[in-house]
Formats: sequence, C-alpha cells, structure tokens
Amino acid sequence: MSDEMLRALRDELGEAGVLTDPERLVPYVVDQRDLVKGSTPAVLRPASTPQVMAIMRLAARHRVGIVPQAGNTSYCAGATPDASGRQFVLSLERLDKVRSVDPLDAALSVDAGVILKHAQEAAEAAGLYLPLSLGSEGSCRIGGVIGTNAGGLSVLRYGMTRDLILGLEVVLPDGTLVSDMRRLRKNNTGYDIRQNFIGAEGTLGVVTGAVLKLIPAPTRRATAWVELAPGVPLPEMLALVRRETSELVSSFEFITARSLALVRAPGGRLKSGSGGVILVELSSSSRHLPVEAVLEGAMGELVEQGWAEDIIIAQTEAQRADMWQIRETIPEGEKRAGGSVKHDISVPLSRTVDFLAQGGAAVAAYDPRLELSVYGHVGDGNLHYNILVPPGEERLAFTARIGRELAPQLYDIAAGMDGTFSAEHGVGRLKRELLQHYADPGRYRVLRGIKGLFDPQGIMNPGAMVDPSDGLPS
Amino acid sequence: MSDEMLRALRDELGEAGVLTDPERLVPYVVDQRDLVKGSTPAVLRPASTPQVMAIMRLAARHRVGIVPQAGNTSYCAGATPDASGRQFVLSLERLDKVRSVDPLDAALSVDAGVILKHAQEAAEAAGLYLPLSLGSEGSCRIGGVIGTNAGGLSVLRYGMTRDLILGLEVVLPDGTLVSDMRRLRKNNTGYDIRQNFIGAEGTLGVVTGAVLKLIPAPTRRATAWVELAPGVPLPEMLALVRRETSELVSSFEFITARSLALVRAPGGRLKSGSGGVILVELSSSSRHLPVEAVLEGAMGELVEQGWAEDIIIAQTEAQRADMWQIRETIPEGEKRAGGSVKHDISVPLSRTVDFLAQGGAAVAAYDPRLELSVYGHVGDGNLHYNILVPPGEERLAFTARIGRELAPQLYDIAAGMDGTFSAEHGVGRLKRELLQHYADPGRYRVLRGIKGLFDPQGIMNPGAMVDPSDGLPS
Repeated sequence: MSDEMLRALRDELGEAGVLTDPERLVPYVVDQRDLVKGSTPAVLRPASTPQVMAIMRLAARHRVGIVPQAGNTSYCAGATPDASGRQFVLSLERLDKVRSVDPLDAALSVDAGVILKHAQEAAEAAGLYLPLSLGSEGSCRIGGVIGTNAGGLSVLRYGMTRDLILGLEVVLPDGTLVSDMRRLRKNNTGYDIRQNFIGAEGTLGVVTGAVLKLIPAPTRRATAWVELAPGVPLPEMLALVRRETSELVSSFEFITARSLALVRAPGGRLKSGSGGVILVELSSSSRHLPVEAVLEGAMGELVEQGWAEDIIIAQTEAQRADMWQIRETIPEGEKRAGGSVKHDISVPLSRTVDFLAQGGAAVAAYDPRLELSVYGHVGDGNLHYNILVPPGEERLAFTARIGRELAPQLYDIAAGMDGTFSAEHGVGRLKRELLQHYADPGRYRVLRGIKGLFDPQGIMNPGAMVDPSDGLPS
Repeated sequence: MSDEMLRALRDELGEAGVLTDPERLVPYVVDQRDLVKGSTPAVLRPASTPQVMAIMRLAARHRVGIVPQAGNTSYCAGATPDASGRQFVLSLERLDKVRSVDPLDAALSVDAGVILKHAQEAAEAAGLYLPLSLGSEGSCRIGGVIGTNAGGLSVLRYGMTRDLILGLEVVLPDGTLVSDMRRLRKNNTGYDIRQNFIGAEGTLGVVTGAVLKLIPAPTRRATAWVELAPGVPLPEMLALVRRETSELVSSFEFITARSLALVRAPGGRLKSGSGGVILVELSSSSRHLPVEAVLEGAMGELVEQGWAEDIIIAQTEAQRADMWQIRETIPEGEKRAGGSVKHDISVPLSRTVDFLAQGGAAVAAYDPRLELSVYGHVGDGNLHYNILVPPGEERLAFTARIGRELAPQLYDIAAGMDGTFSAEHGVGRLKRELLQHYADPGRYRVLRGIKGLFDPQGIMNPGAMVDPSDGLPS
C-alpha cells in the first residue's frame, strides 16, 4: 500500500517533491521544543495547490494520515507525525510565493508556505505593514501562523491572526478545493467557513493560500520602559493606558525581574521595578499625530497614580531596540539557563494579578525552590508562566513531572477564573487531554462533529486536537 | 401534532410565553421591509435559556420548524416564517437582561434579546463604549445583530459584529446548550465554533447570550463634511485618511447628491460637492491626543491633492449631529420618496469608483429615467446602491422586476471585481438563490454540510440561507 502510494506520489510531485532519505527526514519529525520525536515514510513537498489536492486525493483513497507542516515551530507538537511510521509529512516549504500586494486594498495575498518575515517585507516594500510579530517570525510560515491562530506582540491593538485574515484557500481531506481569496472587508453570504480552519492546526484541511489584512506603515513609535512599583493593579493600569492613548498602544508587555535577569546582567540602565516591568509601545502612521506627547501624557498619569518607580522613554531607535531585545530574547534566555516548562495561560484582563498571586502560591507550595520566569502579553490577559528547569534536573523528566503534578493545579486556577490552558500556542498533540478535560461538554461534542464533517476518515493530522465523530451525538 | 406540541409549549413557557391570538401574531409574520408575509401557529416567547432548550427539544421531537426572531429588522426576511402556517416564531424579546458589565475586562454580557440601544447605554454607564452603531439600533436586538453579523457606521475602525464577540451562548437544534461566555481575549483551544453561529441567521441554533467587547469611551470627536471634487479617486483618498489619522478614523461615509436631496432641501450649508460627499469622523478617548488637529492635518492634505471643493469641520456638537442626521435619515428619505430597491454591494476597497462607474452605466442602459440613491460605508468597500421606485410605479412589482432584470447585472459586475451581493445585510429568504449562484462550489458544499451537521432535520429557520446536506458530498 505504502509503496503504491509512494509511486503515485512521485508521479504527481516529481523526485524533488518526495523525500525519503532518512537523514533528510530528521528535521521534519521532531518538534521544535525537542519534546516529541515521530517517524514518517516520506516528506511530501508540493509546489502548487493542485499538487496538494493530488496528495489529499491519494491519501483519502489509501486512508493514509497526512501531517501538514509549515515552519515546524509549534509549541504543542502540532506538526509532528506520530511514531507509527505511517503518517506522511506534507511540508508547505515550496509553496513560498507572495502572490500579490494590493496597496489600495491594504491586502497581501500569499502562498501558505511563505515565511512570516518575507510576508512582512513584502508589505513594507509597498508602504504598508503586516501587524503580526512573533518570536519565530524568521522561520515560521503563514500556514502555521493561521493553523495556530498565532498571537504575538501586537494583539492588543491588531488582534490575533484570525482578525487579519481576509481570504483563505484550503484543500479539504478529500482533495476538494475551497477557495475564498477575495480581498473583501465585508461579505455576509453564509457561514464564514474560513473561521473553522483558522486555529485548526491542519486537522480539517490544508491551508494553501491566504489574503492578509495590512495597515498603514507606522512611521513613528514611542516606547516606554515602566519600572513597576510593588502591588500595581495591572488591569487598572492597562485600562488607563488604553484610554489615554486612545488605543494607539500596540504593545503592553509584562516582564518579571527573574525573566529580565535571564537576558541581562545586573547594573544596566534598564532594570526591573519592585513589581517587574511593563514595556509600552505606541505607534502611528500619521505626520499629524504627536505620538510621543500622547505617550508622555499617559505615562504622567501612571506616575500620578504612584504605579511607577521609574519610567524610561526611548529617545533613539537604538534605545527602543534595546528594550525590545530584552523582551524578545527571554525564550532563548530560558533555554540557556537549562530550559523551562511552559504554560501559556490566559485569564480575563481583570484577573492577571490574581493569577500571578494564586499561581505563585501553588508553585511555592509544590516546591519552594522552583524558579518562575513569567512574562507575556498582559494587555491580552496572556501570561507565559514558565517554570525554570532546576540545575541538575533532567529536562524531559522534569517536564513530565511538572505536567503531571503541578500544571493541573495552574490550569485549574486559570479555569476557576474563566481562563484557559492555551492562550495562543494551541492544542496540538501535547494538550489534547486538557482540551477534553476543560471544554464545555456541548462545545466538545461540536468540536468532534466539525472534525467528523470535514475529515470523516480521520486522515488529516491524526492525533492532533480531537478525533472525528459521526454527527453531533447526544 | 400541532395541538400536542402547543400544549407542551404552554406547560414549559406558561401562558405569557405562547401567543396564538391572530391579531397579536401580525407584527411577527411580516418582515420590516414589507416584502414577505408569512404565517405561524404561535409566537413563542421564552424568558430564559432553559426555556429555549425546552422549545428546541420539543421542536426536534415533533420535527417542527422554528424561526428565531430578535428585533425583526432583517433586510433579507431572515426572521420571517413561510406561508405554510407550520413554522413557529421564537421571539427573543423577553430574554432582555444585561447580565453584567465588566469595566476592567472591557466586556458586556447580555441576553440575546437585549435591544442594541440598551446594550450601548449599559456600556456608557460604565464609562465604556460599544462600537456598534446601526440605523435600527433602537429596535434591533443583539441576537439579530449577531445572526446577521451586522456592520454599520464604524466597521472601518472597530470591525463587524464578529470582531466584537468575546463569548457566545447557543442552543442547538436538538436542545443542547453550547456555552462559551468567557471574557477572554485569547483562547486557542480547538476550532472557534462560535464563528459558525455569527452571521448564520439562526439557521444553526438559537443564540441566547453573548459577551461583547467594549472600548474606552470616546470623549473627543472630530467630524468633517468633505464636498468632493469631480473624479476623486476614493480608494486613494481613503488610504490617505487612514494613514494620516493613524486609523483613528472611525467613519468614512459616502453620500451622493441625490441621496442628500432626499433628506435636505437645497440651499443649506451642508451641500454636495460635484462628486458627492464624504463624512469623516475621528474619535479619541485620550485627554492627551489633539484629535481636532489630527483631522485638520489630514483634511489639509486632501485640499493639497485637489480632492475637496470645500471642507466643513464641525465646530459644535450640534453641527456634528446635523451632519450625522443627514447620513442616518437617508433610508427614511427613500421611503418617503416612494421606496427603493436596495442592493448591498461590497467590492475590494480599490474598486469602489469602478463599481460606481460600471453600475451607473448598467442602470442607465437599462432605463435612463431610473434614479439612484447611492451612499454607504466606502471605508469598508460597502455601497448601498439603491434604485428609487419611480413615481407612479407600484413598489412590489417594481422591486420584483428590478430583481429579475437589473439586479443580476449589478451583482455580476460586483462578482467580476471579486465583490459580493451582500456586504452586511445577509442572505435570509430573499438571497438564497444568489448565494447558490455566486458561491465557490467547494464552499457551497461546505455550507450545506455545516447546516446538516448542526441541523440534520432542517428545523432551524427552514427556508433561510441553505438546506442541510448529509456530510460533504463530492
């Protein structure tokens, strides 16, 4: 069966489209966090949407699992085949063309294999801006960004990936093409079926193209490093900053002292306040809008409230870059320090401080020697709540133990606040059981029904997210 | 069957919950444009979500059609029962409680029967703002706003209804409750199934509650009445205004001279330019942001470009209200003039001027005596492209003739520009055939599959949008 399928695949894709050399397969079968190692008979590298359709028709006929993979940067092993050696990897890397940039439509049409950074550059070349900014932007690809509904550093102002999708092109598990690549802002003609594929991690079909919403390119930015006083009510601070910047605030990032210490030696100018740091950035595309004055006005109010021990406003682009470099290198800092067990928590905006308190208490009660690296997009209620692997502990064993013994407590605390165990990283293979455990029962049945509708044979990224069901069983 | 069901319904809902008096039924069986008249054995008025669940369980058992109705303001007869006399109307009007306003979460939780205006007032009372502004806001209800994914006057900045939904509570056709009323900004835990119900016009389930996203209340507005020079490239003008206001522009509304004349006698200060009018408004919640200066700067650039014959900037709240009164009373003006045949066109932002030219040529070729009232949200690519009923013509007959003979040409022109026949009004009963005709075939199959998944018996608003199918037939 596999041989016959391989022959047919070579006919459809050509030699360059089918990798089977074991050495070349290695990078495709391990997730980027090095937590899961799978196996595959071949990596398929289609160079066009019709080739993706051909692959899915063959897979449907042979009932073979297909694991779509874009940049392979999932934090939840969403693009890693299982160990059976029977699931094919479908790599999007050769679908890497920018189809068009349309300045008057403020729209960018791309193949799903385009690297995020290249999409950003195509927008910039047309005087526009793609407001999607992720740590992995140099290697993640648009199809994966859509599959995980990625968030990142400017969700507060521009939303998640979902909010930036104008059009989508998808190949269904039976090989059918669903094409809606229009650049419309408004189109109320039936269910917005595109939404099902956004955040679906390739379990309902293969996203092969997308139209992304662009915005006028920011020409002025104003950035502040706010050293927090102890006990600052972050939700109130966020509400004030949103209001007094008229929502020009595009980033409102939290950094704790411990996370800062992972990337910066003590004694520098950019230090932590007693309550950590908030990095605030405003951006503007207008020559008529004094964005620096707006930032200064808002920061003045923070001082009046007694919420800041010190505020440093970047005076040069280099100073601004320095602030961002700290924020963006924390994940690497954690890796250098021996790694971390990541929790991608989200709670309602009003509960971030409560979560920090209750989560901290739970960790301390479990083992007071554990160290936390906490940072994240508190402007969206999203905390990267990471536990550093203690010196001398074996990373994978520690990860497994925390996942078993401590993570459930943290997730319960979040759930008790109407929060969630996955704000932006998704479900993949690592959080399937969490999804089943925490989902509203009615919603979970619908999830399985949707999966069953699109992928009744269960051949689309099998093992990720949910298994199909037949209809909506009561 | 009907009698047994009525008895059971009275047991569940009480006498006040089941209207059968023919006189009281009248307003529920006619659409607001007076185009479609249906019939119903009873109007059901549940007062709680469990009562909605009970209704749907009974309807599923008896295989009886249920037509959800909120404010009954659909432009496409989306909430009107058919003439069979067998479909029950499920009115949301008694589900009218504001559940909570949460200022720090910037969220408003409501029953689906809350009138939009009341939701706006609840937000304002908490110092926040619900950025949903519709002509029908005094009578439309949140459930209908969600069911049609309503747009309105500030989509340019704040998006469609879809973009403002944080949480949703839905009763499925079999009576199952799907509850996701969390106030989270980020939650990547499986398919976002809520999206299927937004814009579904009650064909997949009954929306019973929602959490809406709020923003800081605007405290400063700056509004300009731009009299357009002839031949202004509107897409370029829009791009400039968005850029030079840093997207603080919340409205960019187009009004033609003919539409203006429907509501205002000639000779006033607010008159049309040769190319019509653009009403521009910026809003800000910040004390530190000189929104008037930003508007003046941007308007100065329009003058430099030679795009404006005159620009009037509102100096008082009364002047501002006067400008908006014109825009908002055009639909009434059309009614007074004998009515209009409405086309809710959307094209990519870059094509609005092209559509005006080609649409105008098609109308003139069909009958040069016809008069157009064209206005709308060109900031979103959305044109309300209405043909006035000529004096002496019977409205319904004229509507039918235009729908048969001229509308298909207009829709074809829009489709040729990758546009659509329904930007924000939806499909309902009036545009079902258009949906089938213009949808991508793969997409249409998925639409019917989604309908079949949620509503296999076809009891949920039968006759609206699409009929169910069994799976995704090839």
